[in-house]
Amino acid sequence: MSTAPSAVAPKPIDTAALLNNLHWRYAVKKFDASKKIPAATWQALEQATVLSPSSFGLQPWRFVVINDKALREKLKGASWNQSQVTDASHLIAFARRTHLGAEDVQRYIDSIAKTRGVPAASLDGYKNMMLGFAQQPGLDTGLWAAKQVYIALGVFLTAAANLGVDACPMEGIDPKQYDELLKPALGSDYTTLCVAAAGYRASDDPVAGMAKVRYALSDVVKHV
Amino acid sequence: MSTAPSAVAPKPIDTAALLNNLHWRYAVKKFDASKKIPAATWQALEQATVLSPSSFGLQPWRFVVINDKALREKLKGASWNQSQVTDASHLIAFARRTHLGAEDVQRYIDSIAKTRGVPAASLDGYKNMMLGFAQQPGLDTGLWAAKQVYIALGVFLTAAANLGVDACPMEGIDPKQYDELLKPALGSDYTTLCVAAAGYRASDDPVAGMAKVRYALSDVVKHV
Repeated sequence: MSTAPSAVAPKPIDTAALLNNLHWRYAVKKFDASKKIPAATWQALEQATVLSPSSFGLQPWRFVVINDKALREKLKGASWNQSQVTDASHLIAFARRTHLGAEDVQRYIDSIAKTRGVPAASLDGYKNMMLGFAQQPGLDTGLWAAKQVYIALGVFLTAAANLGVDACPMEGIDPKQYDELLKPALGSDYTTLCVAAAGYRASDDPVAGMAKVRYALSDVVKHV
Repeated sequence: MSTAPSAVAPKPIDTAALLNNLHWRYAVKKFDASKKIPAATWQALEQATVLSPSSFGLQPWRFVVINDKALREKLKGASWNQSQVTDASHLIAFARRTHLGAEDVQRYIDSIAKTRGVPAASLDGYKNMMLGFAQQPGLDTGLWAAKQVYIALGVFLTAAANLGVDACPMEGIDPKQYDELLKPALGSDYTTLCVAAAGYRASDDPVAGMAKVRYALSDVVKHV
């Protein structure tokens, strides 16, 4: 993952295909429990999510993929018993870092230095800028980190749609129960915000047949 | 935009192309001010953004595209003088709704009823669920709405990368000055969260030549 952006040529996709896939996407209510996402496709979705942009590049997030069936059953109980949690091929929890301290900045600086083969000291300007941001009075680091995680959620859902994978983002969960059940993966430094179920829609999902509802573009996008 | 998801067949893109485009993407520091995004491509990006998922589908957002050159200059002053604000082909501000009230729920219910050709009364269950959510004590509607807007930011950035359009998401702005300068488009019901500049990287943008920095996938994605 250490290629420079300039060393990669974009492979633009067809504009109509992109919009087609975003029209096709919807929040699946009923998954086909028998259909599984191929391993290579899921791997790509993980990679796409990790490639999400974040403020300063600080990546204040962790993503937990829950494969264990018994655990998925327990999480369903912490998700208003929504069937997507157990029926979907995959379930991924999006968690934010609980704090933003000097050690986060240092870890990131070390990562930059290693990836780019530069002395950490040469990054002092950037480091101090980030420390100034992190230490400003009144900064709501929870809000800040949550925003970044939701960028990643947007990337994940768009990537899934473009790979022909159905998904259902879910905020209707009990984060505290999730944190408890996912403790081995989250530790105490990350806290659950939301989850996404991913897989393939059931042929009889009634929601799939309903027209997509959006406000008119002219009401939502203004030009000045 | 009222097609049902089930009436559309997905046109999956090549997995390698998707990851290629996300590797190619980076936060552009220096745009080529002479290169403009074709109108059809920009239109598609607006449509992709409007198609973003949101909690309940409530779309608590507004997007403002700033074309006016003098206004872009003023906004630059409210953005730490970052050159992307004036040099990029396009500039789009992402704003959240400032509150979530019964009138927002009703507007959405009316939109569903109209789009799907069903009586609004048949949606009372869904309406009451949303009202219950909106009126729960202690709900931080600002945080809630901000999260949704950041999903849209993630969708926008992923869509742009897939269409071969460069971008730079920017949180380093003064939202109050933006709100004041964009008042004709935002009114008093929306407030600026962040912006994205979009266009094409300058051939001499030094950042484009730097390797992309990400923590190891195994550190960020956990399997349980």
